[in-house]
Amino acid sequence: MESYNFAPGPAALPQVVKQELINELSDHLDDQLSILEISHRSDSFVSLINKTQDSIRRLFNLDDDFAVIFVSGGTTMQFALTPMNFAIQQKKVAMIDSGQFAKRALTMAQEVPHVQAEFLDSTKDDHYTRLPLIPSNINSDQYDYLHLTINNTVEGTCYHEGMYPDFNLPVVADMTSCLGEENIDLNRFQMVISSTQKNLGIAGLTIVILRKSWVKSANLELPTIMQYQTFIDSNSLVNTPPVFPIFATSKMLDWIENNGGVAEMDHRARERAQLLYDFLDDSKKYSAPVKISDRSIANVVFTTGDDQKDLDLASRAAKAGLYSIKGYRGFGGLRASLYNGMPIEGVQALVKFLGEY
Amino acid sequence: MESYNFAPGPAALPQVVKQELINELSDHLDDQLSILEISHRSDSFVSLINKTQDSIRRLFNLDDDFAVIFVSGGTTMQFALTPMNFAIQQKKVAMIDSGQFAKRALTMAQEVPHVQAEFLDSTKDDHYTRLPLIPSNINSDQYDYLHLTINNTVEGTCYHEGMYPDFNLPVVADMTSCLGEENIDLNRFQMVISSTQKNLGIAGLTIVILRKSWVKSANLELPTIMQYQTFIDSNSLVNTPPVFPIFATSKMLDWIENNGGVAEMDHRARERAQLLYDFLDDSKKYSAPVKISDRSIANVVFTTGDDQKDLDLASRAAKAGLYSIKGYRGFGGLRASLYNGMPIEGVQALVKFLGEY
Repeated sequence: MESYNFAPGPAALPQVVKQELINELSDHLDDQLSILEISHRSDSFVSLINKTQDSIRRLFNLDDDFAVIFVSGGTTMQFALTPMNFAIQQKKVAMIDSGQFAKRALTMAQEVPHVQAEFLDSTKDDHYTRLPLIPSNINSDQYDYLHLTINNTVEGTCYHEGMYPDFNLPVVADMTSCLGEENIDLNRFQMVISSTQKNLGIAGLTIVILRKSWVKSANLELPTIMQYQTFIDSNSLVNTPPVFPIFATSKMLDWIENNGGVAEMDHRARERAQLLYDFLDDSKKYSAPVKISDRSIANVVFTTGDDQKDLDLASRAAKAGLYSIKGYRGFGGLRASLYNGMPIEGVQALVKFLGEY
Repeated sequence: MESYNFAPGPAALPQVVKQELINELSDHLDDQLSILEISHRSDSFVSLINKTQDSIRRLFNLDDDFAVIFVSGGTTMQFALTPMNFAIQQKKVAMIDSGQFAKRALTMAQEVPHVQAEFLDSTKDDHYTRLPLIPSNINSDQYDYLHLTINNTVEGTCYHEGMYPDFNLPVVADMTSCLGEENIDLNRFQMVISSTQKNLGIAGLTIVILRKSWVKSANLELPTIMQYQTFIDSNSLVNTPPVFPIFATSKMLDWIENNGGVAEMDHRARERAQLLYDFLDDSKKYSAPVKISDRSIANVVFTTGDDQKDLDLASRAAKAGLYSIKGYRGFGGLRASLYNGMPIEGVQALVKFLGEY
């Protein structure tokens, strides 16, 4: 039986990447020198970390002001560290309520002592089926920066290229579920955060891309392990980094580059999402509630219109080898996550199943 | 050519554990359901995390007051989070200067705003070739807790069972390079920290064992992602954890249990270390500077007495397949790290090489 994993992350990896990870371990079964065992101070690991940074610079056309660092603790830890580092003049962060992870970022910033955070706009009343416009005239004297959730994994929305105004204040972009899949110009941001377990590797690593010129203005009254400057200065080797997750990301970046880069990932993602959205929009049994212009190409949210039927469908789909299409806990409905590791055949199989259900 | 990796961590894994990791990936090459790809909310991963906690409880005979949580960011991040959570009454931490990682813990605690940390004793003047006694009568009205580095990876010393007084204040034990190898009763501590890349798995995971009764007194004025209580309440699933490192640790814990538990690991470690120390003590070419009672069984520090010769020897050893015996940068000399993944044959090969050099 063919099977496909539509989980929102961790998520499916390309088979060839998995094979490369197996090969690495198999090649070093006898010599204690596999990527799981070598020192993070070894020449070969330092080369790997440099190569991985270079791949990221090249794939995302980063200008020279950007540093690329590798951290752990997940994006939620970044939701606390970002205001701790940067909300120090106005002590206030502007945010946009586009859903669950925007809410989490707000909460985490509000929990930082002496920091405030507030939503400038929200589409909560529309159950997040559309995105708030990003305001173009934010009062930059009032906020240290604007935090944006670019792709909303739970609600299935995304700020696509073309939906961004010119910014008059620093912008921190949480791109955890779209970096490396959707082609969005990063040079407009001061900082980009992305954990790797969706489009760029496995769980346990967060890529942070940030402007060195901005980090110069950051808080120095923090333990150095919590300062971004420490990671820039040490080339992400202030202490033992998550070695195997970095290796998996390097293999995933190679795969993206060998397959045409982010532009081609974006093209394939649109093809996958379009196939599913077209089917849902044409169907009388299903509906995709999100406004067409705001729909995510990574996370396709849909429903039969009946909670019990949605649960039954997700459970039957899993039995048919189509895993993890249940919607986010507390949000309900159905969701198919279609990241870089998902071949078009997976979407075809899902559409076939949904048609026959 | 046989080869052995004496790196201080990440370090050699038992071959059978590596084979199991390969098997897991190979078994799921086609179905998108490998441990690298499944959701951290899936039943199978939740079972894995529970099973791993149970293994730790069993292997270390933990009493019921202890919680076991899985975090990332390394031990250095814990050096900041521990005082942020617990140095809130006296705002002062007692420490013992046993070397490099004690120093790092002190620095990180001092960098936490409003927290002080100080060494009660130091053997710096003896170049850390012996350990300070742990004082038995610390003024518990003056300090929130005592932080101890149990095994000093750089200097090759360890507080063995029998070297601990009865404590009259909470003790946080950094056991990164000895947990799971040396048999030390954990029930005397309030908190034990150990990253897994030495004796318990691979890089990217830190195990924290801590008393629920103590966590109740912790700081609530921190972002919840920085509070230990959050990890206890969410069963370490507040956000995506480092899934594959947890899997590797579960396999390593199984291996320890199948091979006789921590008592047997301790026995094997003593055998390995004794073989090398005996050779060094008998030799006229080498010396092991650490006081015999304080010697680590995980990290054997030695020297030819000549810096250039030490470097030459480390480089020739690597060419002969005996990797990473160079001492810590800045500390100098030679060091062979002998963790759970190192078979006695590795030490025999090293002794043979050292004898012939």
